[in-house]
Amino acid sequence: MCESTVYLIDKNGKETLFFELVDKIVPDNDTLHLEDILGQKKSVKARIKELALVDHRIVLEEIPE
Amino acid sequence: MCESTVYLIDKNGKETLFFELVDKIVPDNDTLHLEDILGQKKSVKARIKELALVDHRIVLEEIPE
Repeated sequence: MCESTVYLIDKNGKETLFFELVDKIVPDNDTLHLEDILGQKKSVKARIKELALVDHRIVLEEIPE
Repeated sequence: MCESTVYLIDKNGKETLFFELVDKIVPDNDTLHLEDILGQKKSVKARIKELALVDHRIVLEEIPE
């Protein structure tokens, strides 16, 4: 399976694990809608900073309010 | 390997195959920098419309000039 682990860089520049086993990401303006392989969903006000698919790694960057 | 096939929706709404075996995508303002598993690179003025990693499918949407 080719799901990825998603990390989020917060407003202070700190990177933390945000969501595992992510299958889908759909951007909608400033919000990203994520869904894992089990159908669980999370949304976050962030932009995609980097995809590294072979490493199963996606990094998001939080958008300040 | 978890590379994806990248499709691009052009300004006329037509979806075509853009780049195969993509490993990395790094957004930089309106430009996306893509790299495949062989290290070949492409850049395009587009935004990410959808990631479907288990399907190895990424859809980009071209940004009009």
